[in-house]
Amino acid sequence: MDNLSITTAFLNELIAGKEVKILREVFDEFNIVDLAEHVDCLNINDILFIFKVIRKDITGELFSYLDSETQSKVIETFTSNEIRTVLDNMYTDDVVDVMDELPANLVKKVLQAATPQQRDELNTILSFKPGTAGYLMSTDFVELKETDTVGSAIRRIKRQGKVAETISYCYIVSKRKLVGTISLRDILFEDEDEMIRNLMNKDVIYVKTDADQEEVAYLASKYDILVIPVVNDEDCLIGIITVDDILDVIEEEVTEDIQKMAAIVPVEDSYLKTSVWDMAKSRLPWLCGLMITATLTGSILSEFENALAVIPALSSFVPMIMGTAGNAGSQASIMVIRGISVDGLTFKSIWGVLWKELRVGVLCGMILFAVVIARMMLLPPDVTLKIAAVIALSMTVALVVAKMVGGLLPLIAESLHQDPAAMAAPLITTIVDTLALLIYFALSVKILGI
Amino acid sequence: MDNLSITTAFLNELIAGKEVKILREVFDEFNIVDLAEHVDCLNINDILFIFKVIRKDITGELFSYLDSETQSKVIETFTSNEIRTVLDNMYTDDVVDVMDELPANLVKKVLQAATPQQRDELNTILSFKPGTAGYLMSTDFVELKETDTVGSAIRRIKRQGKVAETISYCYIVSKRKLVGTISLRDILFEDEDEMIRNLMNKDVIYVKTDADQEEVAYLASKYDILVIPVVNDEDCLIGIITVDDILDVIEEEVTEDIQKMAAIVPVEDSYLKTSVWDMAKSRLPWLCGLMITATLTGSILSEFENALAVIPALSSFVPMIMGTAGNAGSQASIMVIRGISVDGLTFKSIWGVLWKELRVGVLCGMILFAVVIARMMLLPPDVTLKIAAVIALSMTVALVVAKMVGGLLPLIAESLHQDPAAMAAPLITTIVDTLALLIYFALSVKILGI
Repeated sequence: MDNLSITTAFLNELIAGKEVKILREVFDEFNIVDLAEHVDCLNINDILFIFKVIRKDITGELFSYLDSETQSKVIETFTSNEIRTVLDNMYTDDVVDVMDELPANLVKKVLQAATPQQRDELNTILSFKPGTAGYLMSTDFVELKETDTVGSAIRRIKRQGKVAETISYCYIVSKRKLVGTISLRDILFEDEDEMIRNLMNKDVIYVKTDADQEEVAYLASKYDILVIPVVNDEDCLIGIITVDDILDVIEEEVTEDIQKMAAIVPVEDSYLKTSVWDMAKSRLPWLCGLMITATLTGSILSEFENALAVIPALSSFVPMIMGTAGNAGSQASIMVIRGISVDGLTFKSIWGVLWKELRVGVLCGMILFAVVIARMMLLPPDVTLKIAAVIALSMTVALVVAKMVGGLLPLIAESLHQDPAAMAAPLITTIVDTLALLIYFALSVKILGI
Repeated sequence: MDNLSITTAFLNELIAGKEVKILREVFDEFNIVDLAEHVDCLNINDILFIFKVIRKDITGELFSYLDSETQSKVIETFTSNEIRTVLDNMYTDDVVDVMDELPANLVKKVLQAATPQQRDELNTILSFKPGTAGYLMSTDFVELKETDTVGSAIRRIKRQGKVAETISYCYIVSKRKLVGTISLRDILFEDEDEMIRNLMNKDVIYVKTDADQEEVAYLASKYDILVIPVVNDEDCLIGIITVDDILDVIEEEVTEDIQKMAAIVPVEDSYLKTSVWDMAKSRLPWLCGLMITATLTGSILSEFENALAVIPALSSFVPMIMGTAGNAGSQASIMVIRGISVDGLTFKSIWGVLWKELRVGVLCGMILFAVVIARMMLLPPDVTLKIAAVIALSMTVALVVAKMVGGLLPLIAESLHQDPAAMAAPLITTIVDTLALLIYFALSVKILGI
């Protein structure tokens, strides 16, 4: 069966032929993530049939990989008993993920179907704010005691491991407080009688329940750890976060950051799934705000209309100077925004950043100055050398200023506890455009005496 | 010792006082990642002293978390024997990471110090292109046989596990070909006599050695797997990639993508570490290219200079119309670029994307139309209603066109096997600016008859 690739049509055929035995084998052998994609394409009765015939212990995994629309349909049709079977075979964090997408009436249906213990665990997690460690965690972990020996720890792992999300890392608690961690491999290779207390790692990396999910991702990446324990305000261990969930967090956070930089209010769904209305809503605020600020640039342009009228050539270089300054500013701000989120750049580095951007700006400016002068000499656009010099000089000065403003703005946003991606990136172009125009006209007036 | 937080000064004191026992204890108890940050601040003699006194089996971990400058200094001063001790305690993928940053003469020194087997493994990995699965993988994994029982598998894991990067997942090979995977937890909970063949998972997710690291990250995230096996062209298992390395890959790729979108040729080092010269080099190509294309917009502006002269108010709205179109285009292109890299959007979705952007554009356009008309009526800038209508209409049309071009460009780049982030994002503003100007002037000429 290994060489067979599963298709939706093939699943349909098996269901139509009531080939229960083959269906069960297919779901045992093939990857559930791939199968879930095909199941999403089936009609609801066929999906229910599949849930009836496959092994109970994979129903949870299959369910958690289904599309959120399919999940809603399934929950709607399932009886309380059927829901409970699926819940029994899911980790709490996956259940929370599902509930996140369900309409309110179905969330209620799930909570009612859950066992009292499941309901408690779910309510604990749901009481935390989405985007925090508490909301992200799973409550299914292996807990050992300081007084355990390797032998008793292994017995405990075997007992708790059936329902735990991972057994690769175990957590040692004393009076409910987290006091150490140990990996399964450190236990497996030791003598039966060795004390866990002496083997465990006491310098534990952990997060509080209210820690932002970005911090969780940062710690996982910095310390190369696959599972992070979550503790409450009393330092009691209440959950763990595994790195596969962290991968999803990173993807989410990055998409959010990129959208913010492009002046979009973040939307959660994928491109094709987001409705036209939601998309317009996420794009309008900045579009409208930036449009209004752009009229500022327009007023400056009007102010200098008289100057433009004297030397018409000047106006045709406005887009070049403004555009180049805008690009230069974005480049600098993006580098600094990324530096803040990845390398922990802070406001304290402000002089270093300004000094670096000044030098980069002067270097780039000098080269572009030469390019502009060369271009004007080769393709004479009816300007004197003096006018060419004003244009090239304006661009160089605007570029240096743009680089420094671009470096400064994200650091200011960060020091004001604002999101640098959301505040600095969309604003930078408008600010830098205005500055570039002012510089251009000031130099024109000064040097050309208009 | 738990409540003590380690400082560089404290380490210095211990070294000055030759407190070998306490030093060793500190390095046993505290997190190596944190300790490495302090060690980076010490002078080279003190660092060598630390490597001499700490337990040999943590020298590898400490070394791999040091700054690349410190690593170079250490390798420079170490004897061949000392290098070999550190290598013995490192995973091959970490050694490759280190060698990536070392100057050529030190790479040679490391290879000479390595044992023949280490050298072979390193050369295998170094023969792959950076950025591929082969270059990223570690060759330290646990290999089981189809004919193993659970009992013999556990003995094999205990034997190989001391040097393997992970034992949580084991790989089953038959004639060197990868035929299945099994997690340690699936083995631990089974009877001693059960055959591995019957327990293993045969639908294995794997990558080829030349797969791009982005594909590795994509698979790990899609299938929620913590370790991905790497096979060569003959399907023989030659390495594994663990998810902590994948986290680093994702961070790298995202930084690269963001830089490309901001018209920067990607630089690898962190902001403060990149030299002024490298930074200028990475920013100049697009700055210069976009500056030259911006003169195109300038020429269009010149073309219509006469029209502008008739109704001066028109020119003061150029920045608003161009700016809004530019923002609208960036918003659309960023959404589509992200859709391509995260949700697998392809050229086939082109009609869906165009249709969606058309509707989003019309919706946003209508609202902005109303805002512009309202603004002109409230703060009369000396324009007639007819002129106001031309300005508002131009903006609406330019916005719709910008949205559609913004959605189209990344898909075209993708279908031409170009990087959408690098090709579409920086170009979009220039293209959309030009189109916006053309639309503005065409409508002005048509409606106002100038």
